[in-house]
Amino acid sequence: MPDKILDDISHRRFNPLRGSWILVSPHRTKRPWQGQQESPGLIELPVYDPSCYLCPGNKRASGDTNPNYKDTFVFVNDFSAVKESQEEYTSPDPPGSLPGRFLKAEPVQGKCYVLTFSAAHNITLADMSPAEILAIVRTWTDIYTAHISPESPLAALARPTHLPPSNPHTEVGTPKEQYRWMQIFENKGAAMGCSNPHPHGQIWTTTSLPEEPALELEQLRKYHREQGGGHMLVDYARLEREKNERVVFQNETFLVICPWWATWPFETMILPVKHIRSLIDLTETEQRHLAEAIAEVTRRYDNLFETSFPYSMGIHQAPLAGSDEEIECSSLHLHFYPPLLRSATVRKFLVGYEMMAEPQRDITPEQATLKLQNCGGELYRKRIQ
Amino acid sequence: MPDKILDDISHRRFNPLRGSWILVSPHRTKRPWQGQQESPGLIELPVYDPSCYLCPGNKRASGDTNPNYKDTFVFVNDFSAVKESQEEYTSPDPPGSLPGRFLKAEPVQGKCYVLTFSAAHNITLADMSPAEILAIVRTWTDIYTAHISPESPLAALARPTHLPPSNPHTEVGTPKEQYRWMQIFENKGAAMGCSNPHPHGQIWTTTSLPEEPALELEQLRKYHREQGGGHMLVDYARLEREKNERVVFQNETFLVICPWWATWPFETMILPVKHIRSLIDLTETEQRHLAEAIAEVTRRYDNLFETSFPYSMGIHQAPLAGSDEEIECSSLHLHFYPPLLRSATVRKFLVGYEMMAEPQRDITPEQATLKLQNCGGELYRKRIQ
Ligand SMILES: O=P(O)(O)O[C@H]1O[C@H](CO)[C@@H](O)[C@H](O)[C@H]1O
Ligand SMILES: O=P(O)(O)O[C@H]1O[C@H](CO)[C@@H](O)[C@H](O)[C@H]1O
Repeated sequence: MPDKILDDISHRRFNPLRGSWILVSPHRTKRPWQGQQESPGLIELPVYDPSCYLCPGNKRASGDTNPNYKDTFVFVNDFSAVKESQEEYTSPDPPGSLPGRFLKAEPVQGKCYVLTFSAAHNITLADMSPAEILAIVRTWTDIYTAHISPESPLAALARPTHLPPSNPHTEVGTPKEQYRWMQIFENKGAAMGCSNPHPHGQIWTTTSLPEEPALELEQLRKYHREQGGGHMLVDYARLEREKNERVVFQNETFLVICPWWATWPFETMILPVKHIRSLIDLTETEQRHLAEAIAEVTRRYDNLFETSFPYSMGIHQAPLAGSDEEIECSSLHLHFYPPLLRSATVRKFLVGYEMMAEPQRDITPEQATLKLQNCGGELYRKRIQ
Repeated sequence: MPDKILDDISHRRFNPLRGSWILVSPHRTKRPWQGQQESPGLIELPVYDPSCYLCPGNKRASGDTNPNYKDTFVFVNDFSAVKESQEEYTSPDPPGSLPGRFLKAEPVQGKCYVLTFSAAHNITLADMSPAEILAIVRTWTDIYTAHISPESPLAALARPTHLPPSNPHTEVGTPKEQYRWMQIFENKGAAMGCSNPHPHGQIWTTTSLPEEPALELEQLRKYHREQGGGHMLVDYARLEREKNERVVFQNETFLVICPWWATWPFETMILPVKHIRSLIDLTETEQRHLAEAIAEVTRRYDNLFETSFPYSMGIHQAPLAGSDEEIECSSLHLHFYPPLLRSATVRKFLVGYEMMAEPQRDITPEQATLKLQNCGGELYRKRIQ
């Protein structure tokens, strides 16, 4: 374990991936909780719900009918946050003027997809085997591949097997424009703003490079330059393997860790132990290892408080288009941000102090690791058929 | 109104105070909502609750008994996130080493206060008159003043009337160390992690300068240098007054606006129209104007969806200790971050995409302004006695 003192004193930890700090207050877990209780989730659901817009064969808001898909199915979000085409816009104010300085806006185009994880309405990733999750990893890879810039060094890797649709139910089509970034993510559970329990994730693709990946990319590049070509996350993974204080699970290709700088109580990261820039770099075996790591995280989460554990998950990897240096410095990794703190119904709120001053956590990442290490094995509940 | 097109197309807006972008998707409000519903709050509460640890005369977790205070009462948080004294810590690893690079931590000392807004258990700022809120503004000023570094250019302003305790129920005492930052904030409502409805705020004071104020200070300094001594927020306030597109309320000293770059649906900012570095700079009349602005924001919020509107509020101002330039560049302002989007029960979730990629909002700040302009006047409900 790291210096025992850090279990008792309040301290800040540095996040080198974002270049930012978080406040850790380990002694604060003794605080009684009288506030909001989450609903424990896990109402029994049918395997097929005729009113669900994601179940096979059902009609969606757009009027389209879902195909009778088996595992994954991809379609353009009926309420996309960004669109492929829209009216043009250029700011009317010269940059130096008062309005030019303060009323800055730029248009964003893009495409938003929804991706179902299974035909079954009532399961989650935690219920699924690595083999079942592999189909999702492949679909992510297909969609990512279909959007890579022809100028990217990654484009050469677009092997025929990667080309969509490997799954007949992937409505990807040729993008109208070259997008800069693809954000693959999942909001799981009502506490994370998910409005449909049918297992699914989303993919938002934009002409702009969003804030978080831009921050990370900047830090990764700085490290690469300063360390004469080293990769931050590869070095960090090596250190975490050696220390073995924050490792929840590992296989040949990936580590599941509670990072040193975790903000959310049970935040984890899936990190490759070698330099992998994006999904397209993965061999078939490595795809299986990723599927296994995802299965491990999500099953342990559900086992922890014997509940359907809410979280937001996201994949960071190389931008779709960018300089050779940007693509070389990128490292594939997955973040899981779960809100629960003490039980199925007591969450951590990142509110006043966290919004106005600095993210703050109560238990240490090392304490969280211990708990996640101790809840491996079978899923605590039976898969409902 | 700004370019009408921005009501229809997705675009990014720049936040010069943080140096960051947010994604705006105005067309997305048509999306139906089938997800989590917030409880509408506003259960009838008694004016005095014998089990509340904030009501006058009651016992707290620490064993202390609250005095029979009238308006504000300040005490050290029984479950402080940071403490005045703790064991020492220096990282054991040399900075260049692998662990030195990735396992960076620094100790943080500080003091956390709780501040009640009223003796009545069942009211909120929205129920209070500007005259009642003035007592809170004065107590904030007292506590801030008591913690200012003797080296700060602000120290000279510590007029005798400012010196605590102007209120006999302010347990401030002399800080053991010179702290760098004081974060004054309020979490209101269960949706914002507030565990006790008794009207109260918090004050966390730390040896470190936290992330958000550090980001803002950096941008304010940059602007000050680039504009040859201008102050960003003074220039911005002037522009917003001229444009009159995002102004919800104004008096002689303050504007209430939905900033151009607002992230939360009904986010507002209280902004002085002249350069004010911190609470201590305010004259008595300006203190009254601030109290009036706070009353306006909170009453309009409650009127908007006829509910007790949840939010987190925070005060940004000059650091307690810092260089003369840092203190001169600082601008007092208040942020209100409320989660509700469409009604008393439907909130905006900043989750997957927002956490992994970039904050995203649906209605434009101009649309939010119109709604807040139209709900002034009396509070929609009677003050419960
Ligand atoms: O101190 P409180 O009100 O009990 O706690 C609340 O505010 C704190 C500061 O924003 C947060 O860290 C907690 O998660 C939240 O529940
Ligand atoms: O698109 P959904 O799942 O309906 O919506 C959810 O995820 C989005 C992306 O993180 C958020 O912007 C929404 O606030 C949230 O409710």
